[in-house]
This record gives sequence, structure tokens and C-alpha cells, in this order.
Amino acid sequence: MKKIGLLGFGTVGCGVYEIITQNSNYLNNKVEISKILVRDINKSRNINFPKEILTDNADDIINDPDIDIIIAVIGGIHPSYTYIIKALNNGKHVVTANKAVVSKYYNVLLKTAHENKVAFLFEASVGGGIPVIKPLKQNVKINDIGKIKGILNGTSNFILTKMSEESYTFADALALAQKLGYAEADPTDDIEGYDIARKLSILSNIAFKTTTNLQDIKCRGISNITKLDIEKFNHFGKKVKLIGSAIKSGSNYCASVEPILVDKTSPLSAVNDAFNIVSVSCSTVGELQFYGQGAGKKPTANAVVCDIIDILHDDFDNPICFDENLIKSEGMKLFRGKYYIRINTDSNFDIGEITRLFEESNIKINVEKEKDTLFIFTGLVSAEKIDNIMSSIKVRNFCYARLDDNKVIA
Amino acid sequence: MKKIGLLGFGTVGCGVYEIITQNSNYLNNKVEISKILVRDINKSRNINFPKEILTDNADDIINDPDIDIIIAVIGGIHPSYTYIIKALNNGKHVVTANKAVVSKYYNVLLKTAHENKVAFLFEASVGGGIPVIKPLKQNVKINDIGKIKGILNGTSNFILTKMSEESYTFADALALAQKLGYAEADPTDDIEGYDIARKLSILSNIAFKTTTNLQDIKCRGISNITKLDIEKFNHFGKKVKLIGSAIKSGSNYCASVEPILVDKTSPLSAVNDAFNIVSVSCSTVGELQFYGQGAGKKPTANAVVCDIIDILHDDFDNPICFDENLIKSEGMKLFRGKYYIRINTDSNFDIGEITRLFEESNIKINVEKEKDTLFIFTGLVSAEKIDNIMSSIKVRNFCYARLDDNKVIA
Repeated sequence: MKKIGLLGFGTVGCGVYEIITQNSNYLNNKVEISKILVRDINKSRNINFPKEILTDNADDIINDPDIDIIIAVIGGIHPSYTYIIKALNNGKHVVTANKAVVSKYYNVLLKTAHENKVAFLFEASVGGGIPVIKPLKQNVKINDIGKIKGILNGTSNFILTKMSEESYTFADALALAQKLGYAEADPTDDIEGYDIARKLSILSNIAFKTTTNLQDIKCRGISNITKLDIEKFNHFGKKVKLIGSAIKSGSNYCASVEPILVDKTSPLSAVNDAFNIVSVSCSTVGELQFYGQGAGKKPTANAVVCDIIDILHDDFDNPICFDENLIKSEGMKLFRGKYYIRINTDSNFDIGEITRLFEESNIKINVEKEKDTLFIFTGLVSAEKIDNIMSSIKVRNFCYARLDDNKVIA
Repeated sequence: MKKIGLLGFGTVGCGVYEIITQNSNYLNNKVEISKILVRDINKSRNINFPKEILTDNADDIINDPDIDIIIAVIGGIHPSYTYIIKALNNGKHVVTANKAVVSKYYNVLLKTAHENKVAFLFEASVGGGIPVIKPLKQNVKINDIGKIKGILNGTSNFILTKMSEESYTFADALALAQKLGYAEADPTDDIEGYDIARKLSILSNIAFKTTTNLQDIKCRGISNITKLDIEKFNHFGKKVKLIGSAIKSGSNYCASVEPILVDKTSPLSAVNDAFNIVSVSCSTVGELQFYGQGAGKKPTANAVVCDIIDILHDDFDNPICFDENLIKSEGMKLFRGKYYIRINTDSNFDIGEITRLFEESNIKINVEKEKDTLFIFTGLVSAEKIDNIMSSIKVRNFCYARLDDNKVIA
């Protein structure tokens, strides 16, 4: 019987408690949640559990020699990181769903786990309930992985789904997401792609056998996508998705979070609302895709418990390489594609000047003008060039998005 | 250093040999292929290997006390089954890609592995390179699984893709598949759904924690689908896929392989050519989907080698339950849906008599007649009723298919 200390008794923590205690088949008599860290012991909770296992002192759990496994499901970087490092150094296995901690301290966490010969598992930190970390860790042993691509954030995907399927404006879709509890009061992390960047960095670290820097992942969010853009995408049979991508070429890599236009017949297009998908391109087995619920109490808790089961089986297979700087970020250089660009010409600017910017960079373009709006469709071009041009154009109301897989838009 | 005996040196066997010997990172110095069983030692082979490791006597391998792991990649039931049972009884771990053996002898193979405390792993037997068996085995420990659905045969999917995307007739698409080596001279197993039934039975056994009978899986293939049907499907925004489905309700289950009409925007619709997909509906984690190459030398060999890695990690997690008859087959009773039915009226029959059959069964229908062809679109109805009616109508030229997820066709 292994004893578990649970750090955090919020949504995911309660989900884990329920799965472990209610399941009558497999986990009973194998594990027991013996202590739970909460901020307020006296808070009333809508779950049945023995009150005496609560504590508001983390050391009661982390320093308890009887506890074998720590589940860290508190949000935020601090004090989560300190708790996890202490627990690992105390020889305890750690399972976490905290992507902020995993992505920021990937290297030191895995080194500490390695030195203490314990597990550091984080399946729930990427893609919620989807089992993707585990097959990725295994396949990277016998495959070179050249590309990762995924819809990795339920909130932004919910907003884009409402905009695409039900003609919501961005503002209305965001308000609905907040009302339903899918988006936080400050939705920046979700809509600007920072949450996806954290998950992409974790996937990249495993797939490319290195430690990537979060700062190297260029993020562009979805807040400037308008109903007009969505109508255009529909017209061309495309759907816009906020996608995290990472590619490796030799010892270079590029990683980004950007709005990407996918075919309505592509598997990515069918990933709606809170569902996530991860696609991994492997040298031997080819492309693999993993799909499921990317967030939520039960799916996330399910992934945490799957990690616990691996620990029970002594199958904690920490990633095989965590040397830093084995590969170098090339910014956006390795991304290429055809672009949709919409520039709202309310502001004072010269169309000729804009088209000249593209011509000077040898980019083939088709230009359409509708009322006070300019649409530009480019030929195949590097993402770096387009990013440079777009940041040099001094307009506020614009949107641009790359086509997935270089398919033709118009 | 674990020693491996390889039974079979065909496509998959060579793929396994190449991955194990060429990979310079992980497997070197961990495993060695020490003997290979072939039918003809002197046959010339397009692969570099030491000739002295070949044998044409299986006992040289199965009875060799130095060999720890047997990889069984010979096709057909016999002598594969005998070799595998002998190897397990000799205390050797066994990894196989042979779905015929796994589906037919699932129960006795797992019992024998269990008694001998060795692994019996078969990730490559379903979905080629897709890692699906392993997460399924894990998730069933903490989830009830109610539904499995999948595109599980590359040959039939290639044929349907050619018919849907490039207007091939069934006969022409089959001829092309045979020319390209995707289909065998006798394509019955692939086009009538028997190959899918084997894979579905393996998935059902794990998901439903029992042993299902292959005979309980009702198979209808794709050979009677015509260009006219494909045109109709296109017209309604549907695509036809040969899909294996199994559902469980209480202690009953139903399993079938049938042509199913999926939305062009569904993930199943985007699975083309030799790719496979498996969808699993779990009580806690929700729906999970796994996608990848369903066949081929490298993907299949990759799955075999992943099983080997699990054995090296002592992580051989044989399914937790293999009691027979824990759940009872209900034929087609649990499947319900709306149907597309095409009946060619070349033969002598009375339309009124046909519509009467549906009316007598209280099935709502819309009927369209175009030249000598009758199209019937039904309301929601049990698959059993439709199968009964269709088998009672004495016409030869017909086709019928259920709509996925009960969505409306017309």
C-alpha cells in the first residue's frame, strides 16, 4: 500500500481523490491518499472525505517519511516549484498537472528526480486527459521527431469554435467563455497563446531531447480575428485554429503559437470546444495523432491517476535527455507557408507602399480591396519575412494567418 | 543484454531487425537478435545481417535457454500459435504482430503468459504503428469503456478513398490496390471486414475485460458500393468508411464491421488511404482518439519494438481480466441509426411490397426513385431490424449504410 500526499484540493485535486477512492476495482488496497494540503482547513467542501487528513502545512506532507508519492495540483509557479523540488529531494515520486512549473523548471526537475531515482511524471500537464507524453517518451527512443503540432488550449478553441460555427464576435465569445467558467477574468494566457507555449515547450523538450526556452516560442493570439476574417475563411473552406507548432531541422528548431488556417476536411478542423489534439511526425512510425479532452476535472484527474499507476508498476520512464542548448532556436525561419492577410484601411496609409514591401521581399501576392479593407494572399514565403513586414506596417486593425501544410487558399 | 529470437524474416521481421540494429542511441547493448527463424536459409535477402544467425528449425530458438524474448512475426494461425505457446511455456516473453493468432487464442495465450509470469504483448496487432493497446490497457483500470469505433484496415480504406476522391469503381480501386501490393490476390479478408473483426475483437476484449467471440461480430463489406452510391454520399456531404464498432450496455455488447456514413467534417472522414484511427469512449477521461499508419513495414515494426522496450523496463502489463462470457453478445440489437438504402430495381420486384416491409416494422422512410434505382432514407431504427429486412428482400444489387452518430442525412 503506497501512501499519497495531495498538494491542492481544488477541481483537479478533488477529481483525483474521487477516482482513487471511488474506483472499486484496481486502485483500492494499492494506494491511499493519507494527507491533503489545503489553504483553509475549515472551508466547506462538496466532497466526502475524512476531515483529519487535511493540513495547511506543506511540510507535514513533504517531510512525512510514510508518504511515497506526491501529487502536486496547485496552480502557479510558487510555492508549487519549491514543494516539488523538496519532495523529490526527500525521495518521493512526484506527479503534477502544473504546466507552468514543468515548462519553466523542466531541466532541474528532471535532474533532481534522476539524482533521487524517483519519478517525475506530468502527463496531465499537456492535453489534459490525452495520453500523449507517455507514447512520446517511448517513441523518441527509436524515432527522430521532426514536427509537433497541436490544438492545446480549450479556452481559445472554444472561442474560435463559437466564432466559426455560431458567428459570435471575439468579444462575445470571450464573454461567454468567462460566464461558463472556461476563461479566467484575465484571459491573456489563453487568448495570446502563452498557455499553449508552455505545453508546446514541454512536448518539444521530450521530442527534441533537449531543453527549449519558453522565450523562443513566438506567440500570436486570436484577439484580432474579426467576423470578417471568419467569413473569408469560411468562403475558402478553411477554419482558423490557434496552433502550437515546433519543427526541428538538424540542430536547429523553431516553435510558435499562431492562428493557422486548416482545411475544413482536416482532422484539426474537427477539434472543437475544449477538445485538444497533438500530432507528432516520427521518422519510423510516421505521423501519430492523439485526441481527447484537453481540460476539465475528470479528464485531467484521469491523466494524473494514470501516472500513479505507472509508479505502482515501477514504470517511471523519465525523459532520456535533458541537456540544455543541444539545439538552437532559429526564431521563425523554418516555418514557411502561404498567408492570408487582412489590413483595415481606416488608418491613413498607402496601398502602394504596402504592396511594395512585399515586392521588395520577392513575395508573390494577390491583392483584393473591399470597401476599406485590404486582403492580401501570398505565395509560399518564410514566416520570418511576413512577421517582419507585418510589424513594420503601422496599422492597428489587421489579422494574418498561415495556411496549414502550404495548401492553396485562393 | 537480453537475447531475442525472431520468428519470421519477412517485411515486419526485417523492419524490426533494422530498428534494433541501426538505432545507435537507445537499444544498442540492451538487446541483441541472436537467432532468426526462416523457411529457406539460402534465399537471398536485401538486408545486411550475419548469415549464421538464421535457422529453419523453430526449436533452435524456442528451446534456447539463452533467449529471453521471442518476436513472432510469421503470418497465419499455424504454426505461429504453437510456437508462441511453446515459447511462453518455456518462460520467454513474447511479442507478436499476428492479429489472427491473438484474436483467436486471446484467452489461452494470456493465461499461459500469466502462469509463466512473462509478457505477452501485441501492440502491433491492431492499428499498425498506433500506440493504442497500451493506453487502452491502462485506462480500462480506472474507466468503464462503453464504445470503441475505428477505421482499422488500410486496404479497404485505400479502396474507399480512391472511390470517394478519384471516382474509381470498386473493381478498379481493388485492382489498383492489388497492383500496388496493398491488397492480396484473395482480398476477401480485407474487403469483407474479417481483418477488421479480428482487430475489433482484440480491442473489445481489453476494453470490456472479457473474451469476445469472433463469430459474434457481424461483418458487411464494401464490394457492393457503387459509383452511384458514392455520388449520393457526396451529395449529402457524407463519406463512406468501413468501420468496426463495439458497444457495451450493462452486461451486453454488440460488435460489427459495416460501411458507415460519416460527416465530411468528422475526424473519421479525414482518415485516408492506409491510415487508421481508433476512438474509445471512456467513463472518466471521455473520448480518446488515436491515429496513425495502420500497416507497413516501419510503423508495424516500430510498434513491435515499443513492446520490446516495455519488456526491458519490466513494464509488461497483461490485460487484467480474461474470463470468458462475462458479457453476452446481443447481435446487432444495440446499434441504432438512420439508414441510406439503395436498391437496384433491375430485378423483378414490387416497390409497394418493399415499403410495406418497412411500414410493418414501424420504420419511417422517405423513398426516392431515379430511373431503375430506389433510394430509401429511414428514421432512427435498430440495426437488427434493417439487417432482417434487407436479408428478406430478394434482390442482388443493393447497398445500405448507417449514418454515424445518428445524424440526419436528408
